[in-house]
Amino acid sequence: MKTDVQIANEAKMIPIMEVAKKIGIEEDDLELYGNYKAKVSLDLLEKQKEKPDGKLVLVTAINPTPAGEGKTTTNIGLSMGLNKIGKKAITTLREPSLGPCFGVKGGAAGGGYSQVVPMEDINLHFTGDIHAITTANNLVAALLDNHIHQGNKLKIDTRKIVWKRVLDMNDRALRNIVVGLRGRANGVPREDGFDISVASEVMAILCLATDLDDLRQRISKMIVAYDLDGNPVTADDIEATGAVTLLLKDAIKPNLVQTIENTPAFIHGGPFANIAHGCNSVIATKLALKLGDYVVTEAGFGADLGAEKFCNIKCRFAGLSPEAVVIVATVRALKMHGGLPKKELEGENLEALGQGIENLEKHIENIAKFGISSVVAINKFPTDTENEINLLREKSEKLGVNVVLSEVWANGGDGGVELAKKVVEIVEEKKSCFAPLYDSNESIKTKVEKIAKEIYGASGVKYSRKAEKKIKELEKLKLDKMPICMAKTQYSLSDDPTLLGRPSEFDISIADVIVSAGAGFIVVLTGNIMRMPGLPKIPAANNMAITKDGKITGLF
Amino acid sequence: MKTDVQIANEAKMIPIMEVAKKIGIEEDDLELYGNYKAKVSLDLLEKQKEKPDGKLVLVTAINPTPAGEGKTTTNIGLSMGLNKIGKKAITTLREPSLGPCFGVKGGAAGGGYSQVVPMEDINLHFTGDIHAITTANNLVAALLDNHIHQGNKLKIDTRKIVWKRVLDMNDRALRNIVVGLRGRANGVPREDGFDISVASEVMAILCLATDLDDLRQRISKMIVAYDLDGNPVTADDIEATGAVTLLLKDAIKPNLVQTIENTPAFIHGGPFANIAHGCNSVIATKLALKLGDYVVTEAGFGADLGAEKFCNIKCRFAGLSPEAVVIVATVRALKMHGGLPKKELEGENLEALGQGIENLEKHIENIAKFGISSVVAINKFPTDTENEINLLREKSEKLGVNVVLSEVWANGGDGGVELAKKVVEIVEEKKSCFAPLYDSNESIKTKVEKIAKEIYGASGVKYSRKAEKKIKELEKLKLDKMPICMAKTQYSLSDDPTLLGRPSEFDISIADVIVSAGAGFIVVLTGNIMRMPGLPKIPAANNMAITKDGKITGLF
Repeated sequence: MKTDVQIANEAKMIPIMEVAKKIGIEEDDLELYGNYKAKVSLDLLEKQKEKPDGKLVLVTAINPTPAGEGKTTTNIGLSMGLNKIGKKAITTLREPSLGPCFGVKGGAAGGGYSQVVPMEDINLHFTGDIHAITTANNLVAALLDNHIHQGNKLKIDTRKIVWKRVLDMNDRALRNIVVGLRGRANGVPREDGFDISVASEVMAILCLATDLDDLRQRISKMIVAYDLDGNPVTADDIEATGAVTLLLKDAIKPNLVQTIENTPAFIHGGPFANIAHGCNSVIATKLALKLGDYVVTEAGFGADLGAEKFCNIKCRFAGLSPEAVVIVATVRALKMHGGLPKKELEGENLEALGQGIENLEKHIENIAKFGISSVVAINKFPTDTENEINLLREKSEKLGVNVVLSEVWANGGDGGVELAKKVVEIVEEKKSCFAPLYDSNESIKTKVEKIAKEIYGASGVKYSRKAEKKIKELEKLKLDKMPICMAKTQYSLSDDPTLLGRPSEFDISIADVIVSAGAGFIVVLTGNIMRMPGLPKIPAANNMAITKDGKITGLF
Repeated sequence: MKTDVQIANEAKMIPIMEVAKKIGIEEDDLELYGNYKAKVSLDLLEKQKEKPDGKLVLVTAINPTPAGEGKTTTNIGLSMGLNKIGKKAITTLREPSLGPCFGVKGGAAGGGYSQVVPMEDINLHFTGDIHAITTANNLVAALLDNHIHQGNKLKIDTRKIVWKRVLDMNDRALRNIVVGLRGRANGVPREDGFDISVASEVMAILCLATDLDDLRQRISKMIVAYDLDGNPVTADDIEATGAVTLLLKDAIKPNLVQTIENTPAFIHGGPFANIAHGCNSVIATKLALKLGDYVVTEAGFGADLGAEKFCNIKCRFAGLSPEAVVIVATVRALKMHGGLPKKELEGENLEALGQGIENLEKHIENIAKFGISSVVAINKFPTDTENEINLLREKSEKLGVNVVLSEVWANGGDGGVELAKKVVEIVEEKKSCFAPLYDSNESIKTKVEKIAKEIYGASGVKYSRKAEKKIKELEKLKLDKMPICMAKTQYSLSDDPTLLGRPSEFDISIADVIVSAGAGFIVVLTGNIMRMPGLPKIPAANNMAITKDGKITGLF
């Protein structure tokens, strides 16, 4: 069997200029990064303003399990399938972070015959967007510490600095550090820490900004610390706004690449799906909607986190109306939700599957709550039995949702034709009528409860004393009328990663509440959310190499 | 008077494809980064192997003063001047670091009518090389700390870790830090610190490597720590070699841009000129020599540091033979060397100038010691008087060196024609017969003494106990037979920044000796050398901005 990298290398890429031409992008609006990557000018969005939008399709999934579900692969395969049936489709994805790449994860550019290329560039530095975000984030930190060092005019409380430095690296040693040591020439000592770059608020902002001006305004509002009186100190207060915006002048432009079947793909932005909203950039999605008939997009983790935030944060801010949702599942993963351990997944097991389907059912119900019609895509494995598939169909159809088998991993666009047809059918029925779940102007607790009860299926919400205090502070600062960004485990509908399937009679416990005033959302944390991953015992990096002829091994 | 950015914006850039064609680079060997920047394939160097080299000209300077001397501007102007007189000239420069850009320095792409463009891109992220180096350096650090965290099989002594993390930022708070705090899940606590990215050994290596294979070999040898028995632990021991090389697969390719008169310019690599050798990449210089009649290159700081290392490190490793050296000086700076404070530089002062010329004379003598003919380029200011210029001519000619007035700042290539003619004359006389100053196989102390006495004019060299101990260790480890990389103040020929002019009867004091085994040199430190700058009271970043139409202000 061929590896992903072999398949990618055999793909016949066409010059990115030609990919661009297919969707009406002229040479003048393209900045090449080599022959197969390009950035697209922001002017193009302005020029296309009057054009009607294409149809927006979200690909989401059940709660992830170690068995894998193939969301990105399905996204890419669906866009290629749509092209096969004559729809001008564009896929929009998130940019991979280098941190996980050197850890355990390997590539993040699809798999099998549904990949985006050039995969080695996409997985490594790509067009430098994440590096620009790292630099922008760390310039804010340097200006902040320099402000304090140079006299601290703003009376910043060094115990209440909320801005952390970042690196695009899995590096646990940097989670908790002390900076500014060894005397007055070397800064002011204080506790600090690094997050991974994709957890930076700058990344969330880049992905929500609608243009350079909106970007600047959001940056100016980022809260970096509190002063001795408890008032927020913003990036603008430390005069960082202009330089940070300048550092992002190219990063804000969407990146165009292609799938291995030459379908246009915008890969732009990649915020964490826990402390941020986990979707690719608004600018890329909006631009794709102007250029394509169908735009297939994605959101991080399962539908309880990713799709919820896609709807309540991204679509709300950007005025987007998704017209269909694809919920990706595998028989194997559903059997794990039904209680089977990974090593017992091979044989037919209708009991475990029947139990596990409850997880899928909850996600189907949830998508309906946003007013969007959905379809279940079963990412097919050779070990799936007919009885298992039939059970899945039966249960889903009871909820009014069709099940389609997807073979995009093995067969590329051809394996996605059936799914594509179903998606077009849903869209053309025009039954979707999207609306967010809550009103941003509701109280923080009301918003959190709506998500916890309606989406997670919780009985109630408990707040730590810290969270209670933070909510009161945000209300006092009038920073409470913003959407909620839940930071919760992706493995369960609850906040307990061991509760698989469809847990019931549980409470959600809120440990902390922080505000991303520039991004424009309130992050509600259930327990300790990891913002700086570590490397495993044997990092993937150990096996990577490039020969003198440029042949890459070990990256995927 | 027009600002640098105004002049740069008015420049008529031609597509980089056309710049490339002028020097015989075909489209296949070019990777575009937008329309005005490109990377050049490494294959091109191989393809041109049999072609004879052009002539290599080094631009260096007197010891820098706050009055400025204009070395980069002269470099760019000379290359344009050479083109004006019919020579196919190429300029090769270092890439600017973002750190100083946000501090006090502003742009680093020349000035007036001698600039490289697009200056805003060159000064910001450019083609991402420094970001790649930052990531590569920090991957080594993450793998190192992860190795210790996961059981420390190599018995690394956590008190003897010599590999630091880096950021391309002026950030004093990160100079001295403690990492790995808050319990066993979060790493092993230890003292650490960040350097600025351009101080990374990875940068020095990138600039000395002759191809991807040489790069890999040098990376494998980088010493990251010592074990409990005192043996070095290398990047290869922690299995970092392959992934680090892979991260640099694009950074190793030279970047092509143009001057405002469309002269080809390779801007590639930018190592610190104190703890590293301070020259642009060997690959860029070698490639330029294959493609041009004349290659104008530069080295950091004054000739005592920059030219010395250019000759003893870069030329030695790369087998280069410079055929002419341009020593840049200004009447104003020489008067400062003669003891005048900056505010008294305006009127004619032959006494101060006469004193200060001694600094220039020493550099003229030094260049002769390497067997290279030189010319003095006086970067002309309107306040310079005829008497002052005449004095300069007289003194220089006594040493057999001509003085040429350069007006490249005000007049671009036209202002550099006279200098260009002189350079061609020197080269065509073929009097240069380059040789390094010492044999690498000599003892560390012999090599240091040769540099201190012959180049700096010191009476002797004193070693701290620490330095003595380190020298013995390096001898024991057989790591002593490498060139020396002096880390010394740039402001004086001595190691005391206040001793201007041509100090005499002084000793050089060696505080520490460290080895860059991958780069292949021994760093000899005179006192505490700053490897992570800080931001000033009012950082340049505070005034930077970009309008919604993309107009940039405050960057230069």
